[in-house]
Amino acid sequence: MPIYLDGNSLGRLPKAALDTADRVVRHEWGDRLIRSWDEAWMGLASRIGDKIGRLVGARPGEVLVADSTSVNLFKLASGALAAREGRPRIISDDLNFPSDLHVLAGLAATHGRALDIVPSPDGIHGPVEEILASLDADVALVSLSGTAYRSGYTYDVERVTRAAHAVGALILWDFSHTAGSVPIDVEGAGVDLAVGCSYKYLNGGPGAPAWLYVRAELAPDLHNPIAGWMGHADTFSFDPRFRAAPGTRRFLTGTPPVLSLAMIEPGVDLLLEAGMDTVRSVSLDMTAFAIDLVDRYLARRGFELRSPRDGHRGSHVTIGHPDALAIDLALIAEQHVIPDFRPPDAIRLGITPLSVGYEEVEEAIGRICTVVDNGDHERFRDVEVGVT
Amino acid sequence: MPIYLDGNSLGRLPKAALDTADRVVRHEWGDRLIRSWDEAWMGLASRIGDKIGRLVGARPGEVLVADSTSVNLFKLASGALAAREGRPRIISDDLNFPSDLHVLAGLAATHGRALDIVPSPDGIHGPVEEILASLDADVALVSLSGTAYRSGYTYDVERVTRAAHAVGALILWDFSHTAGSVPIDVEGAGVDLAVGCSYKYLNGGPGAPAWLYVRAELAPDLHNPIAGWMGHADTFSFDPRFRAAPGTRRFLTGTPPVLSLAMIEPGVDLLLEAGMDTVRSVSLDMTAFAIDLVDRYLARRGFELRSPRDGHRGSHVTIGHPDALAIDLALIAEQHVIPDFRPPDAIRLGITPLSVGYEEVEEAIGRICTVVDNGDHERFRDVEVGVT
Repeated sequence: MPIYLDGNSLGRLPKAALDTADRVVRHEWGDRLIRSWDEAWMGLASRIGDKIGRLVGARPGEVLVADSTSVNLFKLASGALAAREGRPRIISDDLNFPSDLHVLAGLAATHGRALDIVPSPDGIHGPVEEILASLDADVALVSLSGTAYRSGYTYDVERVTRAAHAVGALILWDFSHTAGSVPIDVEGAGVDLAVGCSYKYLNGGPGAPAWLYVRAELAPDLHNPIAGWMGHADTFSFDPRFRAAPGTRRFLTGTPPVLSLAMIEPGVDLLLEAGMDTVRSVSLDMTAFAIDLVDRYLARRGFELRSPRDGHRGSHVTIGHPDALAIDLALIAEQHVIPDFRPPDAIRLGITPLSVGYEEVEEAIGRICTVVDNGDHERFRDVEVGVT
Repeated sequence: MPIYLDGNSLGRLPKAALDTADRVVRHEWGDRLIRSWDEAWMGLASRIGDKIGRLVGARPGEVLVADSTSVNLFKLASGALAAREGRPRIISDDLNFPSDLHVLAGLAATHGRALDIVPSPDGIHGPVEEILASLDADVALVSLSGTAYRSGYTYDVERVTRAAHAVGALILWDFSHTAGSVPIDVEGAGVDLAVGCSYKYLNGGPGAPAWLYVRAELAPDLHNPIAGWMGHADTFSFDPRFRAAPGTRRFLTGTPPVLSLAMIEPGVDLLLEAGMDTVRSVSLDMTAFAIDLVDRYLARRGFELRSPRDGHRGSHVTIGHPDALAIDLALIAEQHVIPDFRPPDAIRLGITPLSVGYEEVEEAIGRICTVVDNGDHERFRDVEVGVT
C-alpha cells in the first residue's frame, strides 16, 4: 500500500462504503427498483446533508447534498446577487479555486457587477486586511474559499463574515478544503451561504456530489436561478408552475446521482464518530510535525514551505521546489508516495488524521530526500503533466 | 421477481453493472486512488458520451455526460437565448416535463423573454400544427420533450427542427424518454441542442448523471453560463481566467460523480449491441400488443388509453382511470406488478424490450383486471401518494 498524502484531493475509501455500494446497487436498485425512491432515496440528500451539517455547525434542514460545488456556487451566488440588487461589487481573492473564480466572473458579467479579486500578499496567506479594508456599501457578495486549495491558508470565518455583514453584504464560503479538516460553526459565525465538495476530507468518493448550506432565515428571500422539480414545494405534484420549497430545499434542481450520493455517508459517519475537535487537534499536531521535517530536511534540498506556520493552516502542507513536478512523478512511480502536484512548482502533502499516521509522514519526507539526493527525478523532467 | 413495467422511469440493473461498481469502488477508488483520474476517470464523460452519441446519431465529441437533465437544460437554453438576443419568445408545450418548464420559465424571467406553453389539443398528442403556426422571427428558442413523459407522444424531430430553423430559432430537445426507446438522428435532423437523462431507457442507475448534446458547428458561438474548470480549455492549468474549451466540452462545469457516471456504460452497451432499430421495432410491436389488450380487457373496466395509437408513441403506454392511484398501489403491493402512477389519474406501463417480455405484458394486464374485478384497490384509496 502506498503512502497516500492526497486525501485533501480524493479521500480514501472507507471500509463501510463497500457495504453501501453493495446495498445500493444490488438491493436498492437491483431488487427494489423504483420502490427505493420511497424507501431510501428521496430523503437521502437531506439526511446526509444533515450529517454534514453537524460537521459544519448547521441546523437540520440547512445543508443539502446536490450537484457539483461549482453548480451550487453558481446557484447560491446568483441568489445572493439578486438579493443585493444595486450593489455593484463582488469580492474574492486569488487564493480561491479557479473554478470558483470562473463561476463568479461569469455571474459578474451577466449580472452587471464587477468581480474584485484581492491578491494575497505572498501567495500563501489570505489578504484579510486588504479584503476588510475594501468592504463598503457597494459590495453585494464576498465569496472566498474557507481554506485555500493551494497553501491551505484558513480564514477566520467569523471575522470576515461579521465584516461583510457590517456593510450589508452577503457572504458565501467554499468549504471544500475546510469541511472535515477544520471545525466550522456556520451558525455561530453567522454565515449566510456555503458550499463544499464531498470527495476530499469527507471521503465521499470520486466526484461525489457536493453540498450547499443556506441559513434558514435567509432561504425564503433567495431565488434559485435553476428552478427544478426537486426544489418545488410539492415535487410529485408534477405541477407545471414552479412554487419554491420554503427553505433551503428550493436550491435543489434535478434528480441526484443516488449511488455517488449514498457513498458519502460512511466517510461522514467516521468524522462524526471521531469528532471534529479531535480531528483538528491531531491534524494541527501532525502538520506541525511535517513542517518541522520540512525545515530540518527539505529546506536545504531546495524546498520552501508554502503553507502558513500558524493556526491558520488547514490539513495539508505545501512545499515549493523548482523541480516539483518531476519530484512528484518520481515519488509516485518509484517511492510509493502519492502527494499531488499543483502548477507551476508546488507539491501538496495532504495529512488527513483519519488515514495517515506520523510514521508515514516521516517516511514520506525521507523518501523525498532520497529522490532529490539520488537525482531520481531527473528522468521525469519531460513527462507530460497529468492529474496527480 | 415482480413484473417491472417502470423501465421508463428507472431502468433495470444490467448484470455487467455489478462488475463496473466493483471495479470502480474497490480497484479504481480503493486501490488506485487519485491515479485513477489519469488512468480511467478523466475521459469518462466524453467516452460514455460518445457511446450515447451513437444511440442518438451524434458525432464523436458532441455528447457529454454531466450534471442533471435540468441543469444541462438550463446551461444550453441560457446559451441559446444569449445567441438569439433580441428575439423575445421561447416556445414549449404543456406535455413537457414540469422541471423543464420550471427551468425555461426561470430563464425567460431573467432573460426578459416570454415563455409560450402551447397546449396539447387532447393531453395526449403534441400540438405540432399549433407550434408550427406560432413560429415567427420573434422566436429565440423552441424547447420540447422529444417524447412526452405522460402520454409517450413522440415528435417528428426533424420536422419541428426544420420549422424552427426556418424562422431562425434554435431548438433544444429533451430526449429523456426518447434516447434508448426511439431512434434519433440528431445530425440528420439538424438538431442544435439536446439533453437527456441516463436512468430511464439507458439503464444507467438511479439519478445517473444526464447527457447533453451541442452540434459541433454551434458550440463555439454558445456561452455556458456556469463556467467551471471542467469546461476550461486547459483544465489542469488552474488558470484563474476562464477560457472556454473549443467544442461541446465548454458546457461541462464541475467534477462529475464518477461512480454514478461509470455505471451508465453497461446499459448503453446493451442498447448498442441490440441496435436501436431492433429495439424500436420490438417496442412498437409490444406496445401495439399492450394497446390491443387495453382495448379488449381494460376499456370495459373504466380505463381509457392516454397514449397515441400511431407510430408517434414512445415505449410506454399510459392508461387513465378515476382510481388510478389506488389501482397502482394495489398492483405493487399485492400483484407484484410495478408500473408507475402520474397524477391525477394515470398509470404508465413502461414496455422496454430489453427487460420486458410479451408474456409479462399480458400477465400484467390480467392482474390489473383481477384488481379491478375484485375491488382490491378499494382499501388503497386513502394511502398517501408516494413515488411509484
